[in-house]
Amino acid sequence: MFCMAGSVRKYRYEQLAQELVRLIESGTFRPGARLPSIRQLSRQKQVSISTVMQSLYLLEAQGWIEARPRSGFYVCTMLPSALPEPDVSSPEPDASKVSMRELVTRVVLADTHNPNLVQLGAAHPNPALAATQQLNRLLITVARRLGDESGLYDYVPGTEVLRIQIARRALAAGCSLGPDDILITSGCTESVNICLRAVSRPGDTVAIESPISFDALQCLEALGLKALEIPTHPRDGISLDALRFAVEHNPVSACLVISNFNNPLGSCIPDDNKKDLVHLLAEHDIPLIENDIFGDLYFDDRRPLVAKAYDRKGMVMLCSSFSKSLCPGYRVGWVVPGRFKETVQWLKYTSSLASSTLPEYAIAEFLESGSCDPYLRRVRRAYARRVASLSQMVRHSFPEEIKLTRPAGGFLLWVQLPDSVDSLELYRLALDAGVAITPGYLFSATDQYRNFIRLNAANWSTEAERAVSRLGELVGELAKGSVSRGVS
Amino acid sequence: MFCMAGSVRKYRYEQLAQELVRLIESGTFRPGARLPSIRQLSRQKQVSISTVMQSLYLLEAQGWIEARPRSGFYVCTMLPSALPEPDVSSPEPDASKVSMRELVTRVVLADTHNPNLVQLGAAHPNPALAATQQLNRLLITVARRLGDESGLYDYVPGTEVLRIQIARRALAAGCSLGPDDILITSGCTESVNICLRAVSRPGDTVAIESPISFDALQCLEALGLKALEIPTHPRDGISLDALRFAVEHNPVSACLVISNFNNPLGSCIPDDNKKDLVHLLAEHDIPLIENDIFGDLYFDDRRPLVAKAYDRKGMVMLCSSFSKSLCPGYRVGWVVPGRFKETVQWLKYTSSLASSTLPEYAIAEFLESGSCDPYLRRVRRAYARRVASLSQMVRHSFPEEIKLTRPAGGFLLWVQLPDSVDSLELYRLALDAGVAITPGYLFSATDQYRNFIRLNAANWSTEAERAVSRLGELVGELAKGSVSRGVS
Repeated sequence: MFCMAGSVRKYRYEQLAQELVRLIESGTFRPGARLPSIRQLSRQKQVSISTVMQSLYLLEAQGWIEARPRSGFYVCTMLPSALPEPDVSSPEPDASKVSMRELVTRVVLADTHNPNLVQLGAAHPNPALAATQQLNRLLITVARRLGDESGLYDYVPGTEVLRIQIARRALAAGCSLGPDDILITSGCTESVNICLRAVSRPGDTVAIESPISFDALQCLEALGLKALEIPTHPRDGISLDALRFAVEHNPVSACLVISNFNNPLGSCIPDDNKKDLVHLLAEHDIPLIENDIFGDLYFDDRRPLVAKAYDRKGMVMLCSSFSKSLCPGYRVGWVVPGRFKETVQWLKYTSSLASSTLPEYAIAEFLESGSCDPYLRRVRRAYARRVASLSQMVRHSFPEEIKLTRPAGGFLLWVQLPDSVDSLELYRLALDAGVAITPGYLFSATDQYRNFIRLNAANWSTEAERAVSRLGELVGELAKGSVSRGVS
Repeated sequence: MFCMAGSVRKYRYEQLAQELVRLIESGTFRPGARLPSIRQLSRQKQVSISTVMQSLYLLEAQGWIEARPRSGFYVCTMLPSALPEPDVSSPEPDASKVSMRELVTRVVLADTHNPNLVQLGAAHPNPALAATQQLNRLLITVARRLGDESGLYDYVPGTEVLRIQIARRALAAGCSLGPDDILITSGCTESVNICLRAVSRPGDTVAIESPISFDALQCLEALGLKALEIPTHPRDGISLDALRFAVEHNPVSACLVISNFNNPLGSCIPDDNKKDLVHLLAEHDIPLIENDIFGDLYFDDRRPLVAKAYDRKGMVMLCSSFSKSLCPGYRVGWVVPGRFKETVQWLKYTSSLASSTLPEYAIAEFLESGSCDPYLRRVRRAYARRVASLSQMVRHSFPEEIKLTRPAGGFLLWVQLPDSVDSLELYRLALDAGVAITPGYLFSATDQYRNFIRLNAANWSTEAERAVSRLGELVGELAKGSVSRGVS
């Protein structure tokens, strides 16, 4: 019914990777040969070190090259064919009531804190990579400096020093904001929640990317909203043609996307498409709720812009937080609510009055200190590497007919398993084997992703490597029908 | 239409105060005479030091005695008649749509952080009396000890060590709870919000005490709920007869009370009435949302119980936080949702995912350390003294025909001004004079408290003393009609 507009966009790192593949295939670099060093490639190709590294990780993930410690990257002796990406999603064309509360409660809340499981499920950043210790040190400094003041209610719109820092950082995402355009929240979930409440009433329909994070779906369910799932490309995000058709044929009160590095897809709406998305929705007077929580975790040279950058009418509500990029436990998020500012501010005030004061100040201090950018560079590189390693391991361990996303940021992978594999069955078997994964059922209001799973690469380790290997065996067994079915 | 059931209950400290008044009136202690010392009175009357002190503060507030530094309490030479308490409230008998968003936004959010105003308005604890510095020290210890772990998401139901401490402290309020009965939230506002969402739908009617804090009313408005305001006694809280009549004649989806030291009234529902309240609502299958945020700030010997203590059917949802007793900026609250546990937990998860991790641990540490009870004893005494001082100052400075509450806990006073005084007009004139107060309009969905104001005694100081004196003059001028009306 829907078709995908435009060709698949390439990132710089993908272009470089493609060029290297051509050099390998043409024999310029034969199996066993050593590739030029990262610095050489960077100089020769006039791209940044991080782009080179991300290209190499991608090639590693696809099995073209392998890293040898303290030596460099070498062409593999057994050359691969890269795994295909999942197709553009094709969800039900009608709005659906969301009812996944029971499943989410059972799956997510039960496993997340179980220390006996290898955690490939929940979309948490790696605790050792998070900025927690740096932030804690600043928290201590701030607590001493502010004294009694650190205990005051920090009413809406929240600490000004933090809003100033967020406004400065927004320049890199294409936004020119003043601190008064920004409202601090207790994390991105609260941001999205109050934005949805500001522009919709129970029973309304919200157009969303499909798949989309179950937090977003849960939020719709709790607010009594219906989900209209829009076909979404694994790399380019929401299909504009499909969205246009949807809003022309349905009463839609808002549209919700994870514009940069969708959870679970890793898709990133190309900047031109973002512009078109904003205009399309503005034409129909539909507010866009844009979740950019992964936006700072890009693998390429340059931060992708946000749709908000193209907003001329104040119809885009930009939601984000520091939970994925710096530290989840601080619970500091924000929202740029555009023309809905007063309502959003009032809803924040009536739902939780204020956010925690000290964490806000500590994060403001970190952003101001100049330590944040070097930190983010390190963490981006680490996640790019981990995504590459997990991809490679999945390719090695899972049956050949799977499909796998190629995210250009974040730390999540979305795996399409053979049709015969039920992800909930796999989830249960994996739990028995001590591994937590997230079954595809959780990413749609209908059951269209029954043979998909989401994997988190953030906590990559030898333990995780073994877990993925075991997972691959289980997928293989389920695909062949050689394990007992009907586990309760 | 409604009449008040039962006689006025007396606290121990009030009984002692009454006895001392009789001794003064009978001439046992004549004007200028020194009263027995606090220790002597405590021994002689077999009551605690804090009860004696609270009695003396009350007598001081009523103008019977005066403190002389390093000497003791002396009978005043000009003996007073104590100010009468406001009458039982008599709100509209029908449910009302709540629409005070504009007023609250303008009044509350604009003034609260203005450092040029003497703050007698917002119901904030005194920053210098709050436990902020002690908590910050523990926060530092905890941050160092937990390291990376302090940055993790602390999903529902929240940190177990804190839930254990809350369960232990609940014994003093008459509740026998396990940690699993408790869910941590980002403050009492969030607790009340998710409880309301758990048991009502937009358009439903909620029975509430009248007057009640505007946060509660705002919450109803934001959720599209109607308020059915129930007559409330200035000392004994919600009228059970009136409530019975109301629930028998209206479809009521929940009842919301601030059981101990209602904001703004200071009323405290007697324990027997709490029992009857729980039974009455259980009979009608109506959940009770009980806000106990001021419960730890009692002036008498003993903590008042909570209605939850009488709950046999799981129909009481107890909401509270540490914002008034320890530190507002930490944003740590909780809820004991009874039979609605799963829904409440899910709503917390979908609205803000988790609360801030480190503040939870720091508070748990403080509760466990044994420093909390001595701290609370000090702070209770300080607030009792401040309430007494503010009461006395109001009596001295305001026209004679006013009425004044006699709270037995908390730090708020509710003043009934002469009929001709409009509290919003007074509010504007006071602002011009550099003083923030809270106009009575904010405490009801209808305009029935137009000639009331709420004053906060927490920040008592010589500056506040001057402010109250000026406020008294303004009230006098407004009562006489001698100031220009129609301020915009």
